[in-house]
Order: sequence, then structure tokens, then C-alpha cells
Amino acid sequence: MNNGTTYTLVISCPDQRGIVAAVSSFIAAHQGSIVEADYHTDRELNRFFMRQEILAESLSFTNQDEFRQKFKETAKKFKMEWKITSSAQKKRTVVLVSQEDHCLADLLYRWRAEEFDFDIVAVISNHETTKSFVEWHNIPFHYIPMSKENKGEAFGQIEALFKKYQGDVMVLARFMQIVPADLCERLYGRIINIHHSFLPSFVGGKPYHQAYERGVKLIGATCHYATAVLDEGPIIEQDVIRVDHSHSIPDMIRLGKDVEKMVLARGLRYHVEDRVIIHQNKTIVFK
Amino acid sequence: MNNGTTYTLVISCPDQRGIVAAVSSFIAAHQGSIVEADYHTDRELNRFFMRQEILAESLSFTNQDEFRQKFKETAKKFKMEWKITSSAQKKRTVVLVSQEDHCLADLLYRWRAEEFDFDIVAVISNHETTKSFVEWHNIPFHYIPMSKENKGEAFGQIEALFKKYQGDVMVLARFMQIVPADLCERLYGRIINIHHSFLPSFVGGKPYHQAYERGVKLIGATCHYATAVLDEGPIIEQDVIRVDHSHSIPDMIRLGKDVEKMVLARGLRYHVEDRVIIHQNKTIVFK
Amino acid sequence: MNNGTTYTLVISCPDQRGIVAAVSSFIAAHQGSIVEADYHTDRELNRFFMRQEILAESLSFTNQDEFRQKFKETAKKFKMEWKITSSAQKKRTVVLVSQEDHCLADLLYRWRAEEFDFDIVAVISNHETTKSFVEWHNIPFHYIPMSKENKGEAFGQIEALFKKYQGDVMVLARFMQIVPADLCERLYGRIINIHHSFLPSFVGGKPYHQAYERGVKLIGATCHYATAVLDEGPIIEQDVIRVDHSHSIPDMIRLGKDVEKMVLARGLRYHVEDRVIIHQNKTIVFK
Amino acid sequence: MNNGTTYTLVISCPDQRGIVAAVSSFIAAHQGSIVEADYHTDRELNRFFMRQEILAESLSFTNQDEFRQKFKETAKKFKMEWKITSSAQKKRTVVLVSQEDHCLADLLYRWRAEEFDFDIVAVISNHETTKSFVEWHNIPFHYIPMSKENKGEAFGQIEALFKKYQGDVMVLARFMQIVPADLCERLYGRIINIHHSFLPSFVGGKPYHQAYERGVKLIGATCHYATAVLDEGPIIEQDVIRVDHSHSIPDMIRLGKDVEKMVLARGLRYHVEDRVIIHQNKTIVFK
Repeated sequence: MNNGTTYTLVISCPDQRGIVAAVSSFIAAHQGSIVEADYHTDRELNRFFMRQEILAESLSFTNQDEFRQKFKETAKKFKMEWKITSSAQKKRTVVLVSQEDHCLADLLYRWRAEEFDFDIVAVISNHETTKSFVEWHNIPFHYIPMSKENKGEAFGQIEALFKKYQGDVMVLARFMQIVPADLCERLYGRIINIHHSFLPSFVGGKPYHQAYERGVKLIGATCHYATAVLDEGPIIEQDVIRVDHSHSIPDMIRLGKDVEKMVLARGLRYHVEDRVIIHQNKTIVFK
Repeated sequence: MNNGTTYTLVISCPDQRGIVAAVSSFIAAHQGSIVEADYHTDRELNRFFMRQEILAESLSFTNQDEFRQKFKETAKKFKMEWKITSSAQKKRTVVLVSQEDHCLADLLYRWRAEEFDFDIVAVISNHETTKSFVEWHNIPFHYIPMSKENKGEAFGQIEALFKKYQGDVMVLARFMQIVPADLCERLYGRIINIHHSFLPSFVGGKPYHQAYERGVKLIGATCHYATAVLDEGPIIEQDVIRVDHSHSIPDMIRLGKDVEKMVLARGLRYHVEDRVIIHQNKTIVFK
Repeated sequence: MNNGTTYTLVISCPDQRGIVAAVSSFIAAHQGSIVEADYHTDRELNRFFMRQEILAESLSFTNQDEFRQKFKETAKKFKMEWKITSSAQKKRTVVLVSQEDHCLADLLYRWRAEEFDFDIVAVISNHETTKSFVEWHNIPFHYIPMSKENKGEAFGQIEALFKKYQGDVMVLARFMQIVPADLCERLYGRIINIHHSFLPSFVGGKPYHQAYERGVKLIGATCHYATAVLDEGPIIEQDVIRVDHSHSIPDMIRLGKDVEKMVLARGLRYHVEDRVIIHQNKTIVFK
Repeated sequence: MNNGTTYTLVISCPDQRGIVAAVSSFIAAHQGSIVEADYHTDRELNRFFMRQEILAESLSFTNQDEFRQKFKETAKKFKMEWKITSSAQKKRTVVLVSQEDHCLADLLYRWRAEEFDFDIVAVISNHETTKSFVEWHNIPFHYIPMSKENKGEAFGQIEALFKKYQGDVMVLARFMQIVPADLCERLYGRIINIHHSFLPSFVGGKPYHQAYERGVKLIGATCHYATAVLDEGPIIEQDVIRVDHSHSIPDMIRLGKDVEKMVLARGLRYHVEDRVIIHQNKTIVFK
């Protein structure tokens, strides 16, 4: 944790010798004081991943753009996919929710307690139940009713709102509607879902019922990026809780809520702090 | 934990009022001192399950048979499926293993340390690698080579040995051969397998490879009864361990071993202490 | 989980044969349908503990009082300490909070989501920061400023409010003021505290600082009954979360909040569902 | 995990800009292929810590000594405390054990299964109970009886044996004798102890009894470096397991063994892979 603004440099590139040397020399040459640094090499894919968090005021750049401009040469040399973000620009988060509002309430609390850097700029729901609670936080609430007939149109409105609010990330906080494949593709890597099972077990809408039927001894939750194929996107975070024969389905639902909240909050934090790199269908998460 | 011999009465029957009253009155009438008592009612199935562990010397019976004889009337009245076992008769355990011997070594240690009441009466393997270690424990070791051609015959030998040793329970301690469906059926509820994934995820022979491919953030192990359908039997115990992008498949295999050992040992303990009741494809485990 | 009203019978008495038989015969004789039953014998203390949750409508009693009246004889025979409560009478909960409001927010959410049976009847704080949030829930908020000088008087007001609201349980939800010993004694077994360490480690006001200094690899939280000796009351529930060298004290505080919330919520649920029996300085918790 | 020999460079030095740049440029200049890299800056102490694991065959050095020789200049410039080790030189481990042999058996298994790179070169005990099991592994066993009278002499023999076997690390695998302060000091950072509690709770010889008395809901184990002050050395690893009122002290001892084994094995692995840096009374552990 650090009080000043930080710039985060995230890199993915083919592995070769000298990358760390080049990047750290570049940072040192510009007086950068590194707050946090992480690396990973995927030997199978021969690919290198890096995250550097640097104290903004330590750098000799006047702003992010100069950083980007100057870094381009190094990036090109190593064929990097890269980005530079600033902690001063909090990720603008649009939360979608249906009737189960435990994840929404949890995120709203973390947001107003400033547990980590993100902004909830709007909440969208196909039910009006959470309206007054959201509005107490002075956050705009949009009610978009959904039926089989209007689904396409409704998601059109959602996408329009996301654009209007200049959303950086869309959180499906137990939004029990399947996001259309084309929207998932347009917002690839920007839609985060919480699924109420330990994926890949129990895909679909009734995972606790499936868990109960199968008689598993742990139930879980999975935070992942939404993709065109339901519940198959890259996993960011997972966790589980112990159950036994004495737990009914309502018990599992109750216990599972706590896991869902924690897993979504952790996954979202990793995302908005630019700790996650998606590669193929997996994630590197620099905690 | 208790130093004297205990009798364990395990009951499964249709639920109705008065079962606990009848059973506990019966025990009290015969001076039984209860060491541990557990109950469960499955409301959906309207079925009642009970486990009573009673200090043998406290009872007014001369032996188990008298207990059984006297209890028959109560059992009949409530349409009970029931059994009475004695802690003095340790479950005779036959362990099957292939080359990965971490679970075998773990069970052998627990057996000689007398961590819980069970006897390893024989070890059978399709490899000779564990022979000398097993024999150091003065436990008979049987080498039964296996190929596609001789599989039926080999399992015939295994079943014959299990009978010869008067086995109570067969443990597949990472025995990487699929037990024939008919043998699973004949020994239903007596074959315990450890599967190296958090079932129902990653059925089959290479679960860590599948876990790696899917990019899950936890890997696990499952102890279950072997049934005719591979990896689908009633689950006794499960656990997981955290992994991340930095873990290769060999890392997962190494980390997973510790989970497998613990989960199998716990599952086997529950079984040999008559803490497990199978009902349909699930278990009640009275811990 | 059960939809109808239940009566819960909680018993603590010297161990002897026939207690279960007597109690379950009594219940059966009055047509009681048992929802949940738990027992424990402490062999060292030779003491027996029991919790029976019974479907109210199944019983042949017109009300709780008749149940109590009829049960007296059995209770007397076995020298029982006992109580009968009804799930229809939700425990009236008064929450005390200072500035850190994560536990308060968590409890308020669980209350309005009706996750378990309890009522928050008032919130008291020595700061005004949580006032509007509490009042949004239509729960009375009382601001009682505290200083070294007025501490005795302030706690007098708190006790008066607790009486006025007919409080059943007082929750110290990160209330950073030490409750006077005499108040702890008058409300023995009715004040629940959440301490932000894994007790008995790190007693006092700065546990995360102590944990950081000691270099522990797990931090935790403890829900316990407040007693005259600070942080030494009977423990109801505890949990931990992993940390390492990369975590600063603010990181630990942030991570610890999630543990505190969960541990307090679980501990409170056990208490209000009459699952906890205090005996000497320990608890029996029938989960 | 990596099949070739690796060199591990471990550094601790005052923090300043350019350290990573200097080190990674040095490695790149000598063709080093980095297998694993970790950094940590302690902002409070203004100190920097680094671990680099490099594929030996990738480097342009003929051997470790050349690496050391060439690196000296960089090390001097940044006032580094540093070392270079080779995975080809497995840490020579001397295990001390009393009667409880679960940790010993666990380590012996991991050693013969080659779970990680270390060698058990000798086992020393004040009891003869583990002799034949150790010798089955073709590992020398030394029986050194201990009494109040001969304690000094006995530890003299232990130290002499440790030297004779050119021990790198001494593991107290539930060795229930207190190592003299002066020996702890002479072998500072080379004696690893497993303590059967979650330190700093329950220092001393009977932690499970203390845990039982206090009524904690989790019990644990701590792997730490032995120092002159009992159970107060730098902590390497800790873990816990859930218990409740139903667990007797023998139950806790049984459950705790599994935690002790795992925690010691993990802690030892971190140590022998040069993942641990001690600084003041804490550790940085690069997992």
C-alpha cells in the first residue's frame, strides 16, 4: 500500500534474455522508484509477463503520456503488448445485478470505505429492489426490465449506458441473465462475472442444486472474465467453503454468498489494480 | 477418543417420531454409556440416520451377538437398516497401489503409529517398486503385473486375495487401473478410491493436466467409494490447495500429493470407524 | 433450515445414563418432530450438553410455557440447567461501533437480507460517522461521545439504552472502548466482541501492528464473550487468513476486515440460534 | 520446477534506485536465463531483498566461483549481503527427533521421493525407537541418550556430528529438548524447528493442552529458526486446522500432527531452496 499516485506498467511479450534488464534500466534511467515488481515466464508458451508499479512522482516524466512515448522504443524491440495506467484514474465500474444483492452490497461498502481504488459509476438491474439502497450512495441506478422478448434490446441499452458512463469494467454481481456472445466479445477482458460454483464444476444457473445432488463436501465460487461460452472464460480467483450432509440447499446458498462476495471483491481488486494479464484462456495474477 | 472397546450402532430408516427415544431408551435400559451420538434427518427423502458409539463394558450384554439379538425387535419396528460393529475388530484393509506411493507410505505410517483403528493386511501392486518398503512393515506384498491382455485375470487374482485376507475394505491408493464394474458392484461400499481432483471436475487419468489447462486457482482431491461409473461414486471427503500461474504441472502434482494423502487418510478413518452411511449416491459422514 | 417456528431446548447437566432417553421420550410423548439434535459429553468434567430444535407446530403444547411447565420434572430429575426458546422471538440485538464500520455494515446487510433470525433494534456509537447509514435502515442510532472523563457515565447510558430496547445481546462490532468489568459481569454471556487477532495472540488495541512485528504468516480474528478480563472471555469462533512479508500493516488491516466480518457474523448466528453453551471459560458450539 | 542445475543469487541491501537494473543487466550480459525472480522492498526499513534463480548452463561462467568473482563489483557498489548457491549441491540435512516420529517419517518419505532438493545425511535421537526405520533408508542413525545431567555433553556430541556430516541445516523434527542458547547462536539461521502451536500463542512443551484449556477453535503449527529465546525465532511458515468442543487433547494431538508435517516440510523446502531471507526477527519467503 502506498499513498502517492503510482503508474503501473504491464507487459506481455515473447520470452528472451534481457527484458528485465532493459525495462529496469529504463525505469532507473528515469529515476523511477519501484513500489512493486512481478514477473512470470511461461516456459511452455515461451512467453514473458511483467508488472511494475512505480511511484509517479519519482519519475522524471511530466505525465503518463511522456512515459508511454519514451517507452515505445523498448516495447517495440521486445515485441511487447503493454500498457501504462495511473492509480489516479480509478477504474470506472458499472455493476449489473438481479435480485440477489449480497455482492452488490459488498462492493458498495468496499467502494465507500475506499478499500481499493475503483469507482462505481452506475448500477443497472432488471429489478427495482436495490434502487433505494444504491441511490443512498448517490450512485445512478438504471432499471432495465428483461424478458425473453426484449433481451436483445435490453442488452443494447446496457451497452449504451456502459459507453455513456465511460465504463472501464462491467461487473456481473450475480446478474442472472446471460450476456450475449457478441457483447462479451466487444468487451473482452472487461466483463467480470461471479459464478456461484467452483468451476469447471456445475456450470449454469443452479450450481448449488447440482452440488447438493452430487454430494460434494466443499462448495465454491469463481470470478472470471465473461466470454462467448458460458462460464468458460479465464478464471481470476476462486475459493471454497466446507459443507456436509447436514446442509440443505438453502444452507449452501447462504454459506456460498460469503464465498461469492469475497471472491468477487478479490478478483475485481486484482483487475482494477492491473494485476491480471489474460493469456489465451488463463490468467496471470500478480498479487 | 476412548481407551476401552466400543460398539458402534449405525442405523438408516424411514423418518418418524420416536426413533431416538426408542433407541436411547433401549441403550439406557441395558446400562449403555454413550461415547458419541449423531443423528441426521434428510427431510427431502424423509429418512433418518443415526450413529451411536457405546462403551462395550458399560452394556449389560455378554457380547455383540446378544446386543444384536436384543436390538432386532426395535430395528424391525422402525424398518431399520442397521449394523453393530466393535472397535476391537479392526477393519482389515487391503491397499492397492501403482507407482505413485505417497498415499501408501502415508497409510503405512498411520497404521504403525496407530493413529486410528485399522489393519493393513496386504498390499497389492502392479509394480514391484514398493515391495521392500511394505515388507519392512511385515505386511505381505503381492505383485500382480497388469497389461491390457491380462486385466480380467489380474483383477480375478486381486479379488481372490481380498477374500483370502478376509478384507473388509479395499483402498485404491493411487492405483492407476480401472476396477471392473462387476467387481465394484460386488464390493459396493467397500472399495475406497482417492481421485486427484476436486470432483466432479476433471474426471479421468490426468486431472492435474486438465486443471493446468483450465487455469483453476485451487486444485483438490476426492476420496469416494468406487462404483461402476468411473469417478462418480459417493464422495466421502474432499479438500483443496491454492495454486496460481507460477505453478507448472509438476508443481501441481507435488502440491496435490499432500492433499491426496490427507483426504484419503481422513476418508478411510471415517469409513473404518463406521462414520459413513451411503444413501443413494451421497454419504452422511458423522465426524 | 426450516420454515416453521421451532422451539430450541438447551441443556447442561451432570452426565449420567438415561438423559437422552428421558428427553427424547418426553419429546416423542408430546409428538415433537425434531429438526436438529446435538449432544456432547465432556468426559473430563463429567458433564452433558444437549441442544434439541423441535418443530413448534408438531408439539402437543399450546405454547412455550406449557412446554416449560411440563419439562420441569425431567429437568429436576437430572439437575439440568436448561432453557427453551422460540425462533419466533428473534434476539434483540444492540450493536456498538466506533469508526471502523465494516462489521456494522456487514451485520446490517445480513439483517435486512434475513440471513438468520435476529433483529438489530439499535446502534450506539461514540462517533456520528455511521448515523445516516444506520438510519437509512430505519434503525435508531444513538450517539454517545466518549472521553476519559465521561466513560463511566457513557457506559451507564449504554446500559440504560440496552435495557430500554430490551436487548438480548450486545455486539461490540469493533467498538474500540473497553467495557467496564461490572457491566461485563451483569451482562455475562450476552456481550459478544470481535477481536482482530487470533487469540490468545495479540491481546489489546493494536493486534495487526503486533502481528506485523512478530512476522506471523497468518492473521486472524476471534469472536468471544466479553468478560471482566480483556480479550480472555470464552471463544465462540475464530478464523485466519494468509499473509506474507509483502503485506504492510494497512494491508493486514484490509485483509483482516474480511475475516472479522465473517467470524463475527458466524459467532453471532451461533449465539442467536442458541447453539452456544458457555461452560467455565469455554464454549460448546452446536453447528 | 526445472530439470537443469540452477544457480540462486540471494541479495539483501539498502534500498536505492537501480539495483534491479544493475543485477538484471549483469545477468543478461552473461547470457543468464532467469527461471524465477522475486523482489521485495521493506519501506519501513528501507531495505531491498532479491532472489534470482538462473539456469546454470545458460550462463557464460565456467562455474559458481567465476559467477561470484564477477558479481563482487556489483555487490560492493550496492553494499549487498549476498550469496550464490547451486541446486546441484543439495543441502545436507541432519534431523533430530525424540519419540514422536511423524515429522521424521514425513521428511524421509519426501527425501526418497525426491520431492525437493535436499539430502538427509544423518538422524540423531535421544531414543532408539526410530533406529530401524531410519536405517532401512541407509541413513546413519545416532542414539544420544539425554538426561538433565548430560545435556551439555549430549549437545556437544550433536554439534560434533553436525560438523562431521558437514551439515548445512539441522532440523528439530519434534525434538523435545531445548537447544542451548550458544549452539543456537553458533548455528544461527541453520536450525529449523517445528513448534506444535500457532505462535506466538502457546509457547513451551504442552501447546495442545494449553489450546484445549483456552478453548481455541483452530490449532496450528509453526516452522521457525531456533534462536536463544525459546519459540521466538523468525517464523518461516505456519498453518492451522479447525477444532471444536468435541475434540479431546489426544484428538488435537492427532489432528495437529498433519499440520506439523506439512508446515515443517514447506518451511524446510523454502529454506533449502534458498527462498528465505532472515532480516531482524522476521523472514522474507519468496515462494
